[in-house]
Amino acid sequence: MPPVTPLLDTVSSPADTRGLSIAQLRQLADEVRAETIDAVSQTGGHLGAGLGVVELTVALHHVYETPKDILIWDVGHQAYPHKILTGRRDRIRTLRQGGGLSGFTKRAESDYDPFGAAHAATSISAALGFCAARDREGRDNKVVAVIGDGSMSAGMAYEAMNNAYETTKQLTVILNDNDMSIAPPVGGMSAYMARLVSGGGYQSLRNLGKAVSRAFPRPLQEAARKAEEYARGMVTGGTFFEELGFYYVGPIDGHDMDALVHVLQNARKIDDKPVLVHVVTQKGKGYAPAEKAADKYHGVVKFDVVTGAQAKSQAAAPSYTKVFAQELVKHAERDERVVAITAAMPSGTGLDLFGQRFPERTFDVGIAEQHAVTFAAGLAADGMKPFAAIYSTFLQRGYDQVVHDVAIQSLPVRFAIDRAGLVGADGPTHAGSFDVGFMGQLPGMVVMGPADEAELARAIATAVAIDDRPSAFRYPRGEGVGVEIPALADPLEIGRGRIVREGTAVAILSFGTRLGESLKAADMLAARGLSATVADARFAKPLDVDLLLRLAREHEALITVEEGAVGGFGGFVLHALAEHGALDRGLKIRTLTLPDIFQDQDKPEAMYAQAGLDAEGIVRAALAALGIDNASVKGRRA
Amino acid sequence: MPPVTPLLDTVSSPADTRGLSIAQLRQLADEVRAETIDAVSQTGGHLGAGLGVVELTVALHHVYETPKDILIWDVGHQAYPHKILTGRRDRIRTLRQGGGLSGFTKRAESDYDPFGAAHAATSISAALGFCAARDREGRDNKVVAVIGDGSMSAGMAYEAMNNAYETTKQLTVILNDNDMSIAPPVGGMSAYMARLVSGGGYQSLRNLGKAVSRAFPRPLQEAARKAEEYARGMVTGGTFFEELGFYYVGPIDGHDMDALVHVLQNARKIDDKPVLVHVVTQKGKGYAPAEKAADKYHGVVKFDVVTGAQAKSQAAAPSYTKVFAQELVKHAERDERVVAITAAMPSGTGLDLFGQRFPERTFDVGIAEQHAVTFAAGLAADGMKPFAAIYSTFLQRGYDQVVHDVAIQSLPVRFAIDRAGLVGADGPTHAGSFDVGFMGQLPGMVVMGPADEAELARAIATAVAIDDRPSAFRYPRGEGVGVEIPALADPLEIGRGRIVREGTAVAILSFGTRLGESLKAADMLAARGLSATVADARFAKPLDVDLLLRLAREHEALITVEEGAVGGFGGFVLHALAEHGALDRGLKIRTLTLPDIFQDQDKPEAMYAQAGLDAEGIVRAALAALGIDNASVKGRRA
Repeated sequence: MPPVTPLLDTVSSPADTRGLSIAQLRQLADEVRAETIDAVSQTGGHLGAGLGVVELTVALHHVYETPKDILIWDVGHQAYPHKILTGRRDRIRTLRQGGGLSGFTKRAESDYDPFGAAHAATSISAALGFCAARDREGRDNKVVAVIGDGSMSAGMAYEAMNNAYETTKQLTVILNDNDMSIAPPVGGMSAYMARLVSGGGYQSLRNLGKAVSRAFPRPLQEAARKAEEYARGMVTGGTFFEELGFYYVGPIDGHDMDALVHVLQNARKIDDKPVLVHVVTQKGKGYAPAEKAADKYHGVVKFDVVTGAQAKSQAAAPSYTKVFAQELVKHAERDERVVAITAAMPSGTGLDLFGQRFPERTFDVGIAEQHAVTFAAGLAADGMKPFAAIYSTFLQRGYDQVVHDVAIQSLPVRFAIDRAGLVGADGPTHAGSFDVGFMGQLPGMVVMGPADEAELARAIATAVAIDDRPSAFRYPRGEGVGVEIPALADPLEIGRGRIVREGTAVAILSFGTRLGESLKAADMLAARGLSATVADARFAKPLDVDLLLRLAREHEALITVEEGAVGGFGGFVLHALAEHGALDRGLKIRTLTLPDIFQDQDKPEAMYAQAGLDAEGIVRAALAALGIDNASVKGRRA
Repeated sequence: MPPVTPLLDTVSSPADTRGLSIAQLRQLADEVRAETIDAVSQTGGHLGAGLGVVELTVALHHVYETPKDILIWDVGHQAYPHKILTGRRDRIRTLRQGGGLSGFTKRAESDYDPFGAAHAATSISAALGFCAARDREGRDNKVVAVIGDGSMSAGMAYEAMNNAYETTKQLTVILNDNDMSIAPPVGGMSAYMARLVSGGGYQSLRNLGKAVSRAFPRPLQEAARKAEEYARGMVTGGTFFEELGFYYVGPIDGHDMDALVHVLQNARKIDDKPVLVHVVTQKGKGYAPAEKAADKYHGVVKFDVVTGAQAKSQAAAPSYTKVFAQELVKHAERDERVVAITAAMPSGTGLDLFGQRFPERTFDVGIAEQHAVTFAAGLAADGMKPFAAIYSTFLQRGYDQVVHDVAIQSLPVRFAIDRAGLVGADGPTHAGSFDVGFMGQLPGMVVMGPADEAELARAIATAVAIDDRPSAFRYPRGEGVGVEIPALADPLEIGRGRIVREGTAVAILSFGTRLGESLKAADMLAARGLSATVADARFAKPLDVDLLLRLAREHEALITVEEGAVGGFGGFVLHALAEHGALDRGLKIRTLTLPDIFQDQDKPEAMYAQAGLDAEGIVRAALAALGIDNASVKGRRA
C-alpha cells in the first residue's frame, strides 16, 4: 500500500517547496521519507544513506534555487529523495532496473543532476569547476556540494578543499557526517570529526540552529583574524577546515529543519570565502529496521516495509567474493606473511571474513585507493605478501601507484580485482571493464582471469606463490557456478592455458568466467554440425603463446571471449599472433569484448546479451567468421 | 677541478658519519654540497632540491641507522647528496646517463634506497607499509619519510597521513618545506604552512633547536590533551597535523645541523604516535647562482660551476610543449570559453605562457591530478572548453576521474598529454607509455597522435571544435621537426588518417611522431627495391577503418608504429581488422610498440633504437614480415 502523501502530491518540482513554512517542510520530509522507503522496498537499492538526508534534501531545495543553483551530491546513492523531489517521482519505482532510473545521480536524467556521481569524493572538485565557470562569466548562481564523512578519507576531497579558496569565494560544502560510509569509517580525519561532534560544541549547540546561524562568521579585520580563528576553533573545533580557507559552521543537527534552513540561508549569502557546513545525520533515520541494523540498510534487496524483512536470495553457489575470502584465509593460516588491504570495502571484498580471523593482518585504509596500493607496495618491499582487494572500477583510482610503485619496482603485490566485468544494477560507473587492458599493458605484471570458483582458488594459490613480481586476478560480482573447490588448490603454471574441449572447425578461447557460455556455444555449434575447440586462457599476461599458435594453426576460425573492453585480452592475443606470423596466411579471428559504449544498468544476462558475450553471441560470431549463414548447416569440417 | 673534500673522502658509507661531531657533520655537509654541485655541473639534472637538503641528508644518516632503518625520499630527485653518502659517489658523475645512476631513488641501485620514487607524495604510504611489516614481525627498525611541501597538495599524502596513526605508532615524517616544488606552491595547505613559518613560532625558535627538542611532546593525560593541543597550536601552529594523529614539531631551520641532529634524535625515540618534523629549507642553498634563480636551479643542463652559466641548447625547432602553449593562446583569443588547467606544472606544460596572457583563465591546482581532471569536468559541464595539460605519466593519477567524471558523462574535456613516449634521462618513471591504451579503451574518447608540430596545431584546433565528448592529443618531450605552423590551423576530420607516400609492397602506418622515422624507413626500403606506402593514422580512436582496410587490401605487409605499449594503437588496429574480416585471408601485420620492459634512462635515440622504433627497426620488421633476408634485395613487388 503506497504511503499517504498529501503535501508531496502537490510538489512537482523544487520550486513548489519554496513557499512552504518550516512546519510544512517537516511534513514534506516525512512524506518523502515514506515514499523513499516504499519505493526501495519494491526495487531494492541504497536506502540508509537516502533516509539520512531527507531533511537536508528538502531544506536544500527550499533554500537554493535549483536547478539554476548547482547542487552536487557526492557518490549519488543518497539521492533517491532528491529524485522524488525533482520530477522523477513517477519513475522512482524503476530505480536500478533496465530502462529505469539510475541508482545514482546522472546528467542525462535530469537538469537537477548537473554532475553525476557514483564513486566517492568527486563533488567538491566538480563544484569548483562550476564555480570557476560562473565566476568567469559573472553569473550569480550558487553552488553546493554535499559530501559524506566517509568520502573525506579520499585524497581527492582534500585536493579539492586545498584548492577551494584560490578558486572561488562562493561555494558551500555540506559535510554530511553520519559517521558511517558503508563500513564504520577509519582514519585520523574521522576521529577528528567525531571529536568535533562529541565535544562541547555540538552538545551545547544541538538545539540552537538559529543561534549558530546568527553567529555565522563574517569577514574579520585581518589583524584580529588569527586570534579569532583559534578562539572559534576552541568552541566549534573547525580549525582543520579553516586552515584550508573555509568558514566552518557546525556541527548542526541534520534532522532539525529549523536549524538547517536558517544555516543554509546564511551560507547561501556568503561570498567572500567558501563555507563548510558540518551537518550530523543518522544513516537510516526514521525507519526503525534500518536504524537498528548494523549497516543501516546501506544496500538492500526488496523488503517488507512493515517488518523490514529482506527477501532472501537463493544462492546456488557461494559468491566469488566469498570464495576469495575463504581461500585467502587458508593461505594466511599456512603463511604468516599473507596480509590483506581494503579501501573501505571490507564486506564488499569479503575481507570482513578475513579480518575476523586475522584482525592484525587486515588493513582498512579508508576510501583511499592511491594510498592502499602504495601501502601494499611498502609491505611487499619489506617481505610481506600483500593482497590488495579492490573492485576493478576503483582500482582505476590507484592506477599510477600500480605503475609507479608496484610494477616499475616489480614488487609482489597481489591485486584481487573484484567486480570485474558487468555488474548489473549499479550500471556503468561500477562496471569493471578496463582492468585487463590497463593492467596487462604493464611490463612484468601477471594477469589471471579464472573461469570459475575452483579456478579462482588456483589463481589465488598462484598469486601466493609469485613472489618476484606483481600479479592480479579478476573475478565477477555474483555467484560462482557451483563447482567443487579443493581443500587446498594447486598453483597454476604461469602463462599456461588449457584446452577444455577438443574440436576442429572453430576454436573458442575464453578468458574468465564466460567459459561456461563458451562451452554452451560449442554445444550449439555441434548441434549444427560444427565441431568447436574450447580453451581457457587462464592468463592474459603472460600469454600461452604455444596454445595460441596451436589454436590458430589447427582451426579455420578463432573467437576470443572476455568480459572486458577492447584493448584487453583479445588485443594482446592479436599482438602475439601477429608477432609470430600466425596471421600471415589467414585466420578468421574475431575478438568478442564489451561493446564500445557505457552500458546502462540492467539484469546482467540482458547486458551480456547486448554485449554479444552469451552463448548465442559467440555462436553468431563463429558462424559469421566462417561465412556461414545463420541457418542450419551440417557437416562443415565437423 | 673537483672540489677538495678531505672529510667526505673518509666516508664510504653512512656508518662512517655516526661518530662525527656536530662541527664535523657541518664540514661534511659543506663537502657533500660542493661535490653535488660539481657532479651536476657535469651531468645536468635536478640541483636545487638536493642542495636544500644537504644538512638534512647528513643529519638523517648520522642519527638513523640506515639501511636497517628505512629512509624514504619522496620524489627522489633531491637524493643526489644521499647517493653520494651511500656508496654511490664513484658513479655520481654518471647520473641520468645511459647505464649510469638513476636521477631518482631506485631499489635496484642500492640497499639504501628501500623504496624508489619519482612521482610525488608516495613516501608516507610506502613508509607505512614498512611500518606495518615491522610491527607485525616485532622488529625495531625505525622508518622515516621525507616529503616536500609541494607534495602535500597531493591527496595521496593526505590519505596516508589520515591512515598513519591507525597503522603504526613509530614513524617519522619530515616535512621538507622549501615553499617551492617546481613552481611556487598553491593551495590552502601551502598558505597554512607559510603562516606556520612566518608566525611567531618559527622566528622565536629559529636558533633554538635544542630547546625545541627538549620541549618535544610526550604523551599527555587525556584530560589535559585537548587544551594543551590548542595551546601549542597557537605557538607552533601544528594543529592541522595533530588533528590527524601526529606529534608536530617545528618549524625548525633545516640548515642548522645542531637543531636537526637533536630533534631527529628525539623523534627517533618516539614510539607512541607518528611524528611530523617540520623542517624549513632553502632550495638551492649554498650555491649563489641557484639561490638567485627564480626556479632555484630545479632542473639544469651542464653548467659552469664558477659562473653558474648553463650550456645553451641549440634548438632547431620549438618544443612541442611551446607549440601547444602558443596555439592554445591563439584559440583562447578567439574563444572566451577556452581555459587551461595544470597540476603544478605550469612551465613543464607551457601553461606559464598561457597564464601570462590569460591569468584568469589558467588554473594551477597543485600536485592534484585527480582533482584537476574532475575540476575540468565541472568546467566543461558548465559550458567552458577546458584543456587539462598533464604529462602522460601523471595522467595515470587521474585515470578514474577520466573514466568516471569525463568519459561516462561524455563531457568535452580536452586532454593535452605531454611527455608521451620515451623521455630520455628521466627514465621509466616518467615515460609516457600507456596513455594510448588506457584512454583508447574508453567509449566516446577521441585520441589523437599528431606527427609533427603543424599536426599538433591541427589536433588542438580539432579539440577546440569537439564539444560533445572528450578528446585527447599526445605529443612527446623535446623539439618538433621544424615544419611551418599555419597562422591558424584547420581542424582535422575526426577519425580520418592520411596517406603520406604511396607504395605497393608494404604499408607503414604511423601513429604519432615516428612518422619521420617511418618515411626514412620507406627510403631505406626503396633503396632495396621495395616500395612502401606510409600513412599517418592521426587518430587512435576513432580509427580510420577505410584507410586500414585499404592498406590491408593493397599490401602484402602492414607495419604499425607507435610510441606506446602493447594494447594501444596497434591493438586497436588489429581488433578493427579482425572485426572486418581483413585478416581472414592473410596479412603480414606487425605491430611495433614500446618493448614489454621498463626501459632505463638513456639518450632518446638509443632508447628508440632499443625499442626498434627507429627507421632501422621499422625496416627490419618490414623485411622480416615479408620473409626477406636482411641482405640486399631488388625488384620484389617494386
